[in-house]
Amino acid sequence: MTVRFAVLGAGRIGQVHADAIASVPGALLVAVTDAMPAAAQAVADKHGCEIRDMAQIEAASDIDAVVICTPTDTHADLIERFVKAGKAVFCEKPVDLSVARVQDCLKVVNRVDGKLMVGFQRRFDPDFRALKAAIDDGKIGDVEMVTLTSRDPAAPPIGYIERSGGIFRDMTIHDFDVARWLLSEEPVSVMAAASVLTDPAIGKVGDFDSANVILTTASGKQATINNTRRATYGYDQRIEVHGSEGSVTAENHRQARIELANADGYTRPPLLDFFMSRYAAAYAAEIAAFVAALADGSPIPTTGEDGLRALALAEAAVRSVAERRAVAVSEILE
Amino acid sequence: MTVRFAVLGAGRIGQVHADAIASVPGALLVAVTDAMPAAAQAVADKHGCEIRDMAQIEAASDIDAVVICTPTDTHADLIERFVKAGKAVFCEKPVDLSVARVQDCLKVVNRVDGKLMVGFQRRFDPDFRALKAAIDDGKIGDVEMVTLTSRDPAAPPIGYIERSGGIFRDMTIHDFDVARWLLSEEPVSVMAAASVLTDPAIGKVGDFDSANVILTTASGKQATINNTRRATYGYDQRIEVHGSEGSVTAENHRQARIELANADGYTRPPLLDFFMSRYAAAYAAEIAAFVAALADGSPIPTTGEDGLRALALAEAAVRSVAERRAVAVSEILE
Amino acid sequence: MTVRFAVLGAGRIGQVHADAIASVPGALLVAVTDAMPAAAQAVADKHGCEIRDMAQIEAASDIDAVVICTPTDTHADLIERFVKAGKAVFCEKPVDLSVARVQDCLKVVNRVDGKLMVGFQRRFDPDFRALKAAIDDGKIGDVEMVTLTSRDPAAPPIGYIERSGGIFRDMTIHDFDVARWLLSEEPVSVMAAASVLTDPAIGKVGDFDSANVILTTASGKQATINNTRRATYGYDQRIEVHGSEGSVTAENHRQARIELANADGYTRPPLLDFFMSRYAAAYAAEIAAFVAALADGSPIPTTGEDGLRALALAEAAVRSVAERRAVAVSEILE
Amino acid sequence: MTVRFAVLGAGRIGQVHADAIASVPGALLVAVTDAMPAAAQAVADKHGCEIRDMAQIEAASDIDAVVICTPTDTHADLIERFVKAGKAVFCEKPVDLSVARVQDCLKVVNRVDGKLMVGFQRRFDPDFRALKAAIDDGKIGDVEMVTLTSRDPAAPPIGYIERSGGIFRDMTIHDFDVARWLLSEEPVSVMAAASVLTDPAIGKVGDFDSANVILTTASGKQATINNTRRATYGYDQRIEVHGSEGSVTAENHRQARIELANADGYTRPPLLDFFMSRYAAAYAAEIAAFVAALADGSPIPTTGEDGLRALALAEAAVRSVAERRAVAVSEILE
Repeated sequence: MTVRFAVLGAGRIGQVHADAIASVPGALLVAVTDAMPAAAQAVADKHGCEIRDMAQIEAASDIDAVVICTPTDTHADLIERFVKAGKAVFCEKPVDLSVARVQDCLKVVNRVDGKLMVGFQRRFDPDFRALKAAIDDGKIGDVEMVTLTSRDPAAPPIGYIERSGGIFRDMTIHDFDVARWLLSEEPVSVMAAASVLTDPAIGKVGDFDSANVILTTASGKQATINNTRRATYGYDQRIEVHGSEGSVTAENHRQARIELANADGYTRPPLLDFFMSRYAAAYAAEIAAFVAALADGSPIPTTGEDGLRALALAEAAVRSVAERRAVAVSEILE
Repeated sequence: MTVRFAVLGAGRIGQVHADAIASVPGALLVAVTDAMPAAAQAVADKHGCEIRDMAQIEAASDIDAVVICTPTDTHADLIERFVKAGKAVFCEKPVDLSVARVQDCLKVVNRVDGKLMVGFQRRFDPDFRALKAAIDDGKIGDVEMVTLTSRDPAAPPIGYIERSGGIFRDMTIHDFDVARWLLSEEPVSVMAAASVLTDPAIGKVGDFDSANVILTTASGKQATINNTRRATYGYDQRIEVHGSEGSVTAENHRQARIELANADGYTRPPLLDFFMSRYAAAYAAEIAAFVAALADGSPIPTTGEDGLRALALAEAAVRSVAERRAVAVSEILE
Repeated sequence: MTVRFAVLGAGRIGQVHADAIASVPGALLVAVTDAMPAAAQAVADKHGCEIRDMAQIEAASDIDAVVICTPTDTHADLIERFVKAGKAVFCEKPVDLSVARVQDCLKVVNRVDGKLMVGFQRRFDPDFRALKAAIDDGKIGDVEMVTLTSRDPAAPPIGYIERSGGIFRDMTIHDFDVARWLLSEEPVSVMAAASVLTDPAIGKVGDFDSANVILTTASGKQATINNTRRATYGYDQRIEVHGSEGSVTAENHRQARIELANADGYTRPPLLDFFMSRYAAAYAAEIAAFVAALADGSPIPTTGEDGLRALALAEAAVRSVAERRAVAVSEILE
Repeated sequence: MTVRFAVLGAGRIGQVHADAIASVPGALLVAVTDAMPAAAQAVADKHGCEIRDMAQIEAASDIDAVVICTPTDTHADLIERFVKAGKAVFCEKPVDLSVARVQDCLKVVNRVDGKLMVGFQRRFDPDFRALKAAIDDGKIGDVEMVTLTSRDPAAPPIGYIERSGGIFRDMTIHDFDVARWLLSEEPVSVMAAASVLTDPAIGKVGDFDSANVILTTASGKQATINNTRRATYGYDQRIEVHGSEGSVTAENHRQARIELANADGYTRPPLLDFFMSRYAAAYAAEIAAFVAALADGSPIPTTGEDGLRALALAEAAVRSVAERRAVAVSEILE
């Protein structure tokens, strides 16, 4: 069985997903759409697919699934529209910046028994999967503490930050999802601290650039997240999981596997400095997992519920910073 | 000038300090005392020093300094007694488990213009000093976030834990001191989470075995501390300091610098599993620094004030866990 | 300009090159041929290319270049045949196991002014290129000594070894090429030692499984090569270049970037254990370099001369083992 | 039982051994001698021992053992003199630069049933011992190939080099000893290449500064040694042993266990740059092993025979370079 795709939105992340579809056996890119004709044309030229508009894709009998790569504020509407049209939907995170809007959207998805996958590509990174496999194989015993270090090389433009929902909803949300995945138990409490240390302009639009979060589960497991918008040495993405019988870590990706030694010491290159190169394999594996789930009817690996729960943790972190206290997740999601 | 020492208390840590004194040029071990004659005798035999009682040491004209290695609940009384007797005092941490008692003790020290050094040996570890030197040399720009990982191989006996003041006052206190040292700015706020994950017996005596702490300074710098009483791979002591221009880390000490490669992968030995072997060089450097300060009248490097401030952070952490909120250090130390 | 390819031989390495051609912009796979119809069909199905026979490819006006992936004893004949037919030729190493036959073949190539690239994919490995770039950028000063560690996970079947020309012509030949590339000066002398340590069956067919080689250039630069047919921890491919101002190394590729810590120590996964996965990126880059050279008429990066010189070093190594002396390359190639 | 020592020669290495004796329980430094009174005085002051002349030490009834740290050309004579006087002798390598002279000296030692230990401190390095223990525990199966990388930070003064016997007798001799120790089988054949690459002045006095050696045993095991007199990044001392079931390596010692990350990459400090700091623990362990052997009458761990065999390998290497051929050890030592 081949899953026939349309990509909605041909910007940077849309191109990533179009490339991913082209590389996955069993997936076929049929159409692309974008408000900017040139963007759509570029994808069509590269992959030999058609350009169609939203309504055509909605009505198309030769399209099984859509990948939503449009601006965030359109995600929930498009999800609803396309699940109603009977398409399987892959939506880039987040579903929406509002917990209530996400909840409403998921109700629609459930009502029509729609298929929805939310794009948390880190779960599909080969190294992180190897780490998870080690945990699942019992190599570290019971998980006790998860430590996530997640640092961007540089902040996005202020214009982006203004509309991003803030560092917790935009950046930490990936870490919240990874923490949930690795803890294998829902966090019930969130403590967070956040500051503006790298650029006062970020503070002027009401956001933070440096943050630490502690998540706690009902049984007392803890996860910490360390974020900054500026790491001079590249895109820093580390995981450490400590358990009753050992620990397992996932290391960063360097620009090359070489080391120079001289009178100044031993120097290895900086890290890959872009999330797309860092997670290139993860983006392809993510689409492959979506295709596999559609092909055999197995459960979608990262669901709308996952999107909702990560967003709720972000919401709790925002509140924790503002109110200087531990916030129960149940205050956000009854 | 030679500094002539008596060691008060000939238990495990007293022996460490006696060895350190013997290895430091300019330091001379004159006497030892202990409630257990055999313990004192062992130190006397090893180092060729005399056995005296407390009163003799107090009155001795051939002793310039004492090292207090007796049980914690005697520290403050002995500090007061020996500074009044005109001796320079080196006291193992903590001065006391009560903030108020420490404050009273420091008043006595100040009144008699006494010399008091509190034993935070980590500041004297050669690797940590190299890390601090890199920061002071401007290698990472402005310090933004400090990440401390501090895990014991195994919990001490329950009897010890019961009298220890709890994980924050007993174990984390070293990390609080290191955080203050590396932030170069006082933390003003403490958030902490703590659980019992390794041994229910620890919970039964009212303590925790797993904890995460976030410290924040007035300018927004943050430090995190990750503690557990059980790390199967040894004594895990890592520091990472992230700054505006880079990061610097200090690595663990393995049991040997070898690596085995076979079909199971590449394996290096576990870490040193005892704080005394891990910090052997630090203990010697600490006494050397005390001797150097006495010899040339320069400031004592780790003072009673340092002991007080680390204890106040521990107190704040205890309160944060209990009250599930960020606790201002000013609530503890007006 | 698009370079239109035929792949001659659809075995394992032929498939690698077919995949590489498919992934390189500016390259088009037009046809494949193989004595085994099923093998050719598999490639044709995967890449949507035609199946033709040798004569059709030779005569085709829609084919610009061929990739020779047939058995070694056919290489020289096919090179001659296809350069005469006006095709650009990419030939997997070696051109032939006989130095004299290679020399004759290259004369034919030269006479018709043919284009010939010999497949030494290691020069195109991204990490090795980064290492070479560091050298070319002057990071280690003048190159003095090159150290190559090149170990296979396991020996090929005895039937393969019997026809391989022996370890130096089959396995070390890659290292000879890398040594020449990194020394930037021709070796003039070869010393080699070889033993049978992993499997007596290898000795029975007159070959060795463990070898060390020292190459020396006229100016005294040295390169060493360490080979074994059995490394339990995977495919071990390391380079170290020592220069007047520093050293640079290239590291191995592990199966995953994770590390497990427990009471047994710190364990990272074994290495990739197959040359095709280890050098996947190199194979693609190699074809891209061939296409680029054809497209703009720039020099072929790894030529028949490179193939000849590496083979001559192998020949000298064979003689050095037999005669227990340093063998001058001029004894092989006047 | 206490072993009472005199140190003959109070230069740099004499001081190292005096310090070692002082640190070893069961060893007592009774006397020191040196042609330079100030040198002897410095040791006497530091350790509270007497200054005596050679004849007094020879005749002393309160001295059990001597450590010979005088210039190389006096070693053999002093060994003979002191074993005849009934003293146990520890002699810094080499016994002599002449194989014949060493053989004569060992005959004298044997005739009087003297105790002689030759100083190959590397065998006592804790990391190298851990590596050897892994081999002896069967962790890598049968040893097949030993790879030694041994690079000095900088060449000694030309005046020293002139009298040193050349790089193989002066520097490589340590590696020859380590190779023998790790192979657990005597090398029977030596191939060597040597060049002058770092300083023409070294060539002018007839020596080399860069060398590679291949040793082969009767069963086909191989060891390689890579030497240079100039490594800008410090004192580079690595061991790798490859066996039928795995490999084991020993790593270098850095100046500090820290790592700096910034836009230039990840940088760790250079290596310790002096053999005395690198091997400080080995020197102490070596004397402790000597004392232990004397105390319980167990075999001396590194004997005159070890000194002779390492020297013979050096002699063979010299000849191999000169004659451009593999040299049988039996040509040197019938």
